[in-house]
Amino acid sequence: MIDELSALERIRARFQKVSNSVFLGIGDDTAAVKVHPERLLLATTDSQVEDVHFIKKLISATDLARRSVAVSVSDIGAMGGIAKYFLASMGLSSQEDEAFLEELMDGFESGAKEFGLELVGGNLSSSNKIFIDITVLGEVEPQLIVKRNGAKPGDFLYVSGTLGDSALGHKLLASSKIAESDEYLIMRHKRPQPRLNLGRELAKKRLVSSMIDISDGLMLDLERISIRQGLGATIYVDRIPLSSNYKERISDFSRDIYSIALSGGEDYELLFSSAENKREEIKKVSKRLNIKITEIGKVTDKPPVRVLDRYETELKVRRKGFIHFL
Amino acid sequence: MIDELSALERIRARFQKVSNSVFLGIGDDTAAVKVHPERLLLATTDSQVEDVHFIKKLISATDLARRSVAVSVSDIGAMGGIAKYFLASMGLSSQEDEAFLEELMDGFESGAKEFGLELVGGNLSSSNKIFIDITVLGEVEPQLIVKRNGAKPGDFLYVSGTLGDSALGHKLLASSKIAESDEYLIMRHKRPQPRLNLGRELAKKRLVSSMIDISDGLMLDLERISIRQGLGATIYVDRIPLSSNYKERISDFSRDIYSIALSGGEDYELLFSSAENKREEIKKVSKRLNIKITEIGKVTDKPPVRVLDRYETELKVRRKGFIHFL
Repeated sequence: MIDELSALERIRARFQKVSNSVFLGIGDDTAAVKVHPERLLLATTDSQVEDVHFIKKLISATDLARRSVAVSVSDIGAMGGIAKYFLASMGLSSQEDEAFLEELMDGFESGAKEFGLELVGGNLSSSNKIFIDITVLGEVEPQLIVKRNGAKPGDFLYVSGTLGDSALGHKLLASSKIAESDEYLIMRHKRPQPRLNLGRELAKKRLVSSMIDISDGLMLDLERISIRQGLGATIYVDRIPLSSNYKERISDFSRDIYSIALSGGEDYELLFSSAENKREEIKKVSKRLNIKITEIGKVTDKPPVRVLDRYETELKVRRKGFIHFL
Repeated sequence: MIDELSALERIRARFQKVSNSVFLGIGDDTAAVKVHPERLLLATTDSQVEDVHFIKKLISATDLARRSVAVSVSDIGAMGGIAKYFLASMGLSSQEDEAFLEELMDGFESGAKEFGLELVGGNLSSSNKIFIDITVLGEVEPQLIVKRNGAKPGDFLYVSGTLGDSALGHKLLASSKIAESDEYLIMRHKRPQPRLNLGRELAKKRLVSSMIDISDGLMLDLERISIRQGLGATIYVDRIPLSSNYKERISDFSRDIYSIALSGGEDYELLFSSAENKREEIKKVSKRLNIKITEIGKVTDKPPVRVLDRYETELKVRRKGFIHFL
């Protein structure tokens, strides 16, 4: 049995020595390499595996394919980059037919259109369980790239959108108690919206000191931009942005209204840190792009990540988010 | 059930309309995109799936990882390019332990060193069967890139090395009748040698009109550089280069000495076409790099691909090579 987090740390340690042409190697959302005097090439890869990331009967092939593209594109957005091309490596079993493949293509096509990139290559293998591995290539100007490791003590922490919808939608999907009004939460799970425009805008205006897309839950991704750099964070639980649909439905799954929003994962919202004096500009970006941005706390000068209630009492939160590794 | 070849044709047809920045989209060995005024970015992806491409107990994790890198790097070589970076997306089950992961890393490291590229990113997922999906990024000068579709009627056809060793090695591995002297054939299967230097040299000297690495068997890859462009080919079966190990062992598996060499697959040797007047220069490259290059026949002006014996009698050959799709 392999612990994904410690395994990734070891891989990182082992392959961190890279040549000068590698601007950013293993360990951030995407790799960044110098292939052009004025632009960095971004490259990121992510998989969707049957019965791990999705249950075949609960998602259409079209949504599955679009989702596979969305989660990889999201990493490009978190660097402040522009997604350009993607390659799709697929493993399909003998159960899948040509109609299934056509639907996958529909999903790739719609993802390509929606996120502004092109399918340029791929591979098709046999596999007893479906997997879809997407590699997205993008680009960003070296002076605009936003990394995970730039947060400074005192920086404010922000998240886009609302958290926990996708994880709750996933629970609803897997349950047998879906109401018509649950469509919103389920769509948030099936059709995640990577924050490409927001990430790009924040980078272009140099408003953020670090940024990450929330894929494994807020708690874990907070650690990635703070504890890994020797810093900590304090966040206020009642500032966590929740959708009205989430608030209506959460009590059927958890007595703790915030647990799924804090650790549920697969939000693909952006978490970022920003100097205090950028506050007004961030509000303007939020208004102009019509994307909710919420200030949830601050970066501190040492670990841990602390979650406080409105009375400044520290809460115990499950550290790990939604880790896909068994 | 999906037919891999027809599926790939449909994917190709559907995604062939690409923007001007895409020099070469789906359908060749690798994608080529313009990211730099003087160089094209090459990107290719390939998977190794447990029980499809390998049996876990028959190959070490180190060889498996190195092999995964080798087969993707091979596609870069077939374009005349230079491999630069790779991303590794892995699916591992709860049966694999940390030692297994360390061995995979050993294989990535040795492949990286051997083929001159760097690991810059990756992903780790849970999966009930192991899969390793490698995306290799490379580069090539636009004026030197070698495509699949440049062959002309009358061009000579060449292959590097010897064919069939890997497929026979695979059969030996799966059998229980391995002799000590079979080590060579088994190594040819476990540790394929992509012809990076040869591919690059042929491209730099502009000696070839089309090139492909033989991954699915000579017959199928011959079709890819001839029939798909409306051309055909005539090859002479007794010119097919066979290793002495292959010749000694083939009779235990097939009465037809050439069948596995023609259709076995996973050779990762180069198949290329070249104008008649380049013959002497090709001999010189072969000599200088100390790599066997054999002239096996000619490109013809129309399909099919014909295989002749020494009396010019046409032989019947199973069309399909080693297609991994069930």
